[in-house]
Amino acid sequence: MCQPVRVAVSVSAPPVCVLGLGLIGGSLLRAAVAAGRDGWGWNRSAGPVDAARADGFDADTDLVAVLRRAADAGALLVVAVPMPAVDATLAAIAEHAPGCPITDVVSVKAEVAAAVARHGLQDRFVGGHPMAGTNESGWEAGDADLFRDAVWVVSADDGVDPEIWTQVARLALDCGAVVVPAESVEHDAAAARISHLPHVLAEALALSGAAGGDLALGLAAGSFRDGTRVAGSAPGLVRAICEGNRDALLAALDETLDVLARARAELSDEGTLAGLVEPGFEARRRYENRERWTITGIEPGSENWLERMRDAGRRGGVLRP
Amino acid sequence: MCQPVRVAVSVSAPPVCVLGLGLIGGSLLRAAVAAGRDGWGWNRSAGPVDAARADGFDADTDLVAVLRRAADAGALLVVAVPMPAVDATLAAIAEHAPGCPITDVVSVKAEVAAAVARHGLQDRFVGGHPMAGTNESGWEAGDADLFRDAVWVVSADDGVDPEIWTQVARLALDCGAVVVPAESVEHDAAAARISHLPHVLAEALALSGAAGGDLALGLAAGSFRDGTRVAGSAPGLVRAICEGNRDALLAALDETLDVLARARAELSDEGTLAGLVEPGFEARRRYENRERWTITGIEPGSENWLERMRDAGRRGGVLRP
Repeated sequence: MCQPVRVAVSVSAPPVCVLGLGLIGGSLLRAAVAAGRDGWGWNRSAGPVDAARADGFDADTDLVAVLRRAADAGALLVVAVPMPAVDATLAAIAEHAPGCPITDVVSVKAEVAAAVARHGLQDRFVGGHPMAGTNESGWEAGDADLFRDAVWVVSADDGVDPEIWTQVARLALDCGAVVVPAESVEHDAAAARISHLPHVLAEALALSGAAGGDLALGLAAGSFRDGTRVAGSAPGLVRAICEGNRDALLAALDETLDVLARARAELSDEGTLAGLVEPGFEARRRYENRERWTITGIEPGSENWLERMRDAGRRGGVLRP
Repeated sequence: MCQPVRVAVSVSAPPVCVLGLGLIGGSLLRAAVAAGRDGWGWNRSAGPVDAARADGFDADTDLVAVLRRAADAGALLVVAVPMPAVDATLAAIAEHAPGCPITDVVSVKAEVAAAVARHGLQDRFVGGHPMAGTNESGWEAGDADLFRDAVWVVSADDGVDPEIWTQVARLALDCGAVVVPAESVEHDAAAARISHLPHVLAEALALSGAAGGDLALGLAAGSFRDGTRVAGSAPGLVRAICEGNRDALLAALDETLDVLARARAELSDEGTLAGLVEPGFEARRRYENRERWTITGIEPGSENWLERMRDAGRRGGVLRP
């Protein structure tokens, strides 16, 4: 079984054991190995394992064997299975590699953190979420450069082990990403605003266009095309990410329903949309002009480091290699 | 003064007199001249007129002179001024060229048609709306190819003169567009769904992202970028097109607020978004798979030609050269 890692830069880059070899897990294994890390993977079904092996990677369908190897090597475990499979994966980890540091790449952070706690693994766990993806899925769609310059959220929740936190951040950096430190609940609220709400609005807009029949769809130009683009994503995938972040999405949706209701009243009563359009333009400009700045001088484990990391993340700071 | 035109293909392509030399009017004058039409333009301010002249076009700031010339030549008048200037332009037409055929390119059709009726010009008027544009404006931004393969709605309202209708459709085809016949009120309802509602939702989404601060904006990826793109359009322009189509936009917005409220209830009560996401995906697919088919065999002026044109437009039909 792996021993608790006690810092030192040399041990912050242990081998990586990727559990789940889909688009994200498969890209992560490729990226970690390309960065010089030792790494291997597991997948429940044989197809991705065979494909990974054919591409020269170390992969297996035997979860117990893979986890025991990870325990022996002190590997960083990366949970990269779909949300419905997270519980079973964590149960196996608790049985066969309970001492290994653990992270995940499963999108919604609070739900995963709760599952981790149910299995008593919270002391070894630091959640992660690389904000990258394509419309494709599966090992074959993976790419060692998928995370290049992407944002990778690393959860800065109370009680996390600073050494494991550093290991997870190091993995993200090794994969080419920049790291945003954020509390799980803040991550989920932000993701609802900028990832899940856009899907909900795109679906609603697509429905409005189609309700106008072929005349409306035939007149549609760029604003409709772009506004509905993500409604073309696989429904199962959209539902999984949105439904998995239900509470935060409901809060964001309620806020937006209020905004729209106020705009509706303004348009109906006064004939103007100034109260929506002027601040909406400023909001888009703020998005366009956002800048990443580099967080420096916060040593994981130092006094108030979590509060300082979270504060920096809230203000747009990122960790770079 | 021009005489009422009594069909014959030869007279369906009279000279074109463009009133307003902004992006759309300026592009139209360029496109019509490029197609071999005789054409000239007017603009209230001298800047665009000087620029048009420098580019070799016939343009003037003297509205009375321009309109008298149009009356003498039996020109087709194209109202291409911003909505707030439509009334004054129509008043001048009623005084100086009341016999000329008239069309417009001013977006919302019911509002323009009402203004035309106020000036007693409805017998000479057939509305139009080329679905083309860029984020830029002004004569300099114009392009003879702006309308190439674009959709150009030509209003098929009860009582329109079939000969003027043919002239307006011919102008649109000469400019490289395809023509969609539609009743003004149906055009406006469709435009609310596929052009004005997308702007409203984009503004609301931009506000939700910005309300999440730099953390949320820093995590934003493609779904937020595309979903908020048109919130970057000039607020005055967005307000003008949305507020000008108030009733139709309110109807589309109410429908969408209902859709979102139902989705919210489903997510809250049952934890699922299936009722939104599955049909939303189908709606987007219908948009992606829409096809234009060519309307043939409907002669303007023949029995039930307006009903038949409108029906064809509703079903995705277009007129081609």
